[in-house]
Amino acid sequence: MSYSAPIKLMRAMLQHAADIETLSNLDAFAEFDTDLMDAVLDEAGKLARDIVAPTNQPAHEFGARLGDEGVTAAPMLKAGFEALRDGGWMSLSAQPEFGGQQLPRPLSLAFMEMLNGANTAFALAPILTLGAIDALQAHASDDLKQRFLPKMISGEWSGAMALTEPQAGSDVGALKTRAAPNDDGSYAITGQKIYITWGDHDHLDNVIHLVLARLPDAPQGSKGISLFAASKYHIEDDGTLAGRNSFKCIGLEKKLGIHASPTCVMEYDRARAHLIGEPHKGLAAMFTMMNAARLHIGVQGVGVSEAAAQSAIAYAAERRQFNTLLQDMPDIQRMIARIRATTLASRAICYATGFAADMAEYAADADTRKAAKQREDLLTPIAKAWSTDRSVEACSLAVQVHGGMGFMSETLACQLYQDIRITPIYEGTNGIQALDLIGRKLASDKGAGMAALLDDVRKTAERARTYGHAPFTRIAARLSAAADALSDATDWMLAAQRSDTARAQAGATAYLKLAGDVAGGYFLTRAALAMAADEADPTSGEVIATAAFFAEDILSTAPGQLASISCAADILTENADILSGKA
Amino acid sequence: MSYSAPIKLMRAMLQHAADIETLSNLDAFAEFDTDLMDAVLDEAGKLARDIVAPTNQPAHEFGARLGDEGVTAAPMLKAGFEALRDGGWMSLSAQPEFGGQQLPRPLSLAFMEMLNGANTAFALAPILTLGAIDALQAHASDDLKQRFLPKMISGEWSGAMALTEPQAGSDVGALKTRAAPNDDGSYAITGQKIYITWGDHDHLDNVIHLVLARLPDAPQGSKGISLFAASKYHIEDDGTLAGRNSFKCIGLEKKLGIHASPTCVMEYDRARAHLIGEPHKGLAAMFTMMNAARLHIGVQGVGVSEAAAQSAIAYAAERRQFNTLLQDMPDIQRMIARIRATTLASRAICYATGFAADMAEYAADADTRKAAKQREDLLTPIAKAWSTDRSVEACSLAVQVHGGMGFMSETLACQLYQDIRITPIYEGTNGIQALDLIGRKLASDKGAGMAALLDDVRKTAERARTYGHAPFTRIAARLSAAADALSDATDWMLAAQRSDTARAQAGATAYLKLAGDVAGGYFLTRAALAMAADEADPTSGEVIATAAFFAEDILSTAPGQLASISCAADILTENADILSGKA
Repeated sequence: MSYSAPIKLMRAMLQHAADIETLSNLDAFAEFDTDLMDAVLDEAGKLARDIVAPTNQPAHEFGARLGDEGVTAAPMLKAGFEALRDGGWMSLSAQPEFGGQQLPRPLSLAFMEMLNGANTAFALAPILTLGAIDALQAHASDDLKQRFLPKMISGEWSGAMALTEPQAGSDVGALKTRAAPNDDGSYAITGQKIYITWGDHDHLDNVIHLVLARLPDAPQGSKGISLFAASKYHIEDDGTLAGRNSFKCIGLEKKLGIHASPTCVMEYDRARAHLIGEPHKGLAAMFTMMNAARLHIGVQGVGVSEAAAQSAIAYAAERRQFNTLLQDMPDIQRMIARIRATTLASRAICYATGFAADMAEYAADADTRKAAKQREDLLTPIAKAWSTDRSVEACSLAVQVHGGMGFMSETLACQLYQDIRITPIYEGTNGIQALDLIGRKLASDKGAGMAALLDDVRKTAERARTYGHAPFTRIAARLSAAADALSDATDWMLAAQRSDTARAQAGATAYLKLAGDVAGGYFLTRAALAMAADEADPTSGEVIATAAFFAEDILSTAPGQLASISCAADILTENADILSGKA
Repeated sequence: MSYSAPIKLMRAMLQHAADIETLSNLDAFAEFDTDLMDAVLDEAGKLARDIVAPTNQPAHEFGARLGDEGVTAAPMLKAGFEALRDGGWMSLSAQPEFGGQQLPRPLSLAFMEMLNGANTAFALAPILTLGAIDALQAHASDDLKQRFLPKMISGEWSGAMALTEPQAGSDVGALKTRAAPNDDGSYAITGQKIYITWGDHDHLDNVIHLVLARLPDAPQGSKGISLFAASKYHIEDDGTLAGRNSFKCIGLEKKLGIHASPTCVMEYDRARAHLIGEPHKGLAAMFTMMNAARLHIGVQGVGVSEAAAQSAIAYAAERRQFNTLLQDMPDIQRMIARIRATTLASRAICYATGFAADMAEYAADADTRKAAKQREDLLTPIAKAWSTDRSVEACSLAVQVHGGMGFMSETLACQLYQDIRITPIYEGTNGIQALDLIGRKLASDKGAGMAALLDDVRKTAERARTYGHAPFTRIAARLSAAADALSDATDWMLAAQRSDTARAQAGATAYLKLAGDVAGGYFLTRAALAMAADEADPTSGEVIATAAFFAEDILSTAPGQLASISCAADILTENADILSGKA
């Protein structure tokens, strides 16, 4: 059983949920067209299926090992790193100055989805590298860009993000790592960081760490944090690598999943580093790349969900009980349908978020950019949290389809269930996403961004209604009722934010879930409508049926979620100590 | 962080969801009273906390090992087996003839809940032993009872259930293991069994296997299966143990969780065994104990959920982020409240199912027994499936409360998340429970059992309404609307069963979820009403607040579940191949 990218469905979502042809009209993507998209998807699909997917279970089995020379990553992953380098895959969305191809984000996300479907522990290396590239592109001096970016964009070096410390997890502002100025303008970093994904490994020549630390004169808390870049090997002025910098991995975490991804405890002992951006503005610099990083984790959820769906389908097609193949049993079919429907919906949401990000950056018109930015900001926490929560559910359903085999370590579905559980936690827990949604994204613009989204949802529901026949009339009714529920929930949330923040926060996660359900239904319906003219095409038929199933299975529950957002939050707030076991 | 049994809440559910005082009026339980209940709960709580809970993480770490002499179980578990034996704990619910105390089932379930909360991998040994005791009590000849039961009930020997074969999982009827008659009236069993929990270990003197196999003249399929008992060591006529019987563990499964529970591949090579009950009636014999076994797995879910709640509460009480303890953050409080509410509801359902089972067996009046049997049959698949599904959710929420620490193998919540995932799979997958609910339990009596339950639910809602003040008036409205939804769903399901079985089956799991939500809300409300007179008592206040939270958080979604039972099943049935990835 090996992962194979669902290229037709990905293409459908790129075109009809992410409007990728609209992007091709922007100057920034002048050289992009759908032929190029198809070529990229095909080549990426081969890489994922032929080079990366075969490593998934063996690398999980090997894990990662720490020796005197540093971390030994799973040997079978070397071919993946080489293929990323040789195919120029790290350059897809990077800026052209240092070798980037600047293709539209949704396409780059589709590529990353494939890597995650093929081997998500491996995919974390490019995810972190892309994050580091983003940060350097946005904040580093030209000199530092020239030093680091070409080799990272070419796939010769990887990147790592060193934020977390034991006392500073979600609360990054509590970190203690120090940076002392050296005489030559560089800095000496001292401290310990934990949970550093791919912080060290032996498959590439160098690893560039972006490290958050405090300067000697730094204010307390989050306003006193600066961002630094530290290279595993010193870089000579001519670009050649010299001896080791003074930081190293001193421990590997033993984790539930993503075993092939080395999760390092890093010790920096006067490590030579360069300041990125302004002193004390490190957290702001990190925030500018947070949308992209969170969206990448949402896409991680999509890719792993797809792998879970494929594993369940393959098992159901060969396992027979009661003289019947599992694939012919309605309860099994429904589990698979549920996985596939939420996978397609989360794919649509994530690609659409990427579309909004590109429009926010590159649209010609300032108003369009502003509206797109609002949409990107609104969708990002949903893309991250909803996609990963649904992916945990999807992997659990895939385990369930396997019956007893699903609990055996040798089963891919079992590995996926282990791997996926980190995604609702890192890059901002899903609780933090929910607080971000109701706070920075909802309250700060008094719900204007959500109102604009709801307006689009209602227009789409109306188009479905006037389409005039099944299943669109049914979808229209579900989508319209779900929009009403989200609208009511938004009103409640905005009022709660004003009157009693605790109540609002107690309803935040349930609110995000509803928003994700509605957004998923909206994008699926949009895509289904766009493809309806060509209903005989199997992909069209599949998208339409999936939109209908999503509407009946998930959107139909939207009105009933209203009370669990609002009334349950009220009860909780009134009885918080009793209910949460404090009393 | 160690497990401590929530005795006050357990006692509350024993009294007010399981009506244990009603049982004390039956002849069978003449010697039982609440003083005895309290003494048992206290002693059991000490055993769980002091002897068993400290083994949970070390035993998980050790796992189980296979050597030439058989399976070496985690050494730290030996004290647990000794305590079970020395305290006579295996005798709680067993029949008096062979040393049993015949206490009410709900109390025995409360004890098993504690063992599961303390170390669920260990608890599987007594669970399987109790299952084997049940089967022998119900079906073995007096001679065989005398041979096996005293040592099993005394806790000196354990039991194992050998059903599954590679091609015969849920479909037990497909098994191939053969039993050939010996000259002395015994049988020689030959074949291989997989997934045999605690099939071998070194902590007790002997292990009694109940094995399903085919006699030479057996009909094909499930009507040709007979039940046998095979002892790891031969038993002399005077009861002493002689040499090894010819069966052994030839492999241990590598699993996601319950590492300390040896999951054995067993090979029987002309193993000496005794027929239990009639030839070819083995499956029927297994079915008679299936209710009990399924209820035990439901209780496993309850115990692990409680442990998850406690782990989350303990972490939230000490972990500080943004200068705030997690326990003071509303989103964290809500996750904990959700865990605790579903834990209490599943506890209530499981104990109430045990009550129904006792009434079905021991009530003086035949009509009462019949009605109780109907209730037991109806609640059993709900107790098994709903409790375990909610427990998977609970353990996932406990991981989430821990943030990054939740993904680390050293964290108890991480272990619980691994351990619990088997419970929706074994002892009949939760999909099979759902099919059992809509088939054997709903269609076979044309919904009469469900109608009787709904009648009780509505009466309780009415009592809550007439109670006349908050939170009961709110609870009443939620419970009443939820009962209507379940009633409508039942009508749909009965009609679908008649017209199109596939549609019914496609809605089965969603239907069971709704039934569990309603049953949970009903038992919590009953308990809350019973305790309302004493609202100042902290336990009363907690049960009432929990019932209110459950009503607003979970019951409130019941009406919205109707379409996802019925309409989603319709869409699925119409598009099964496309949606489930066959096409």
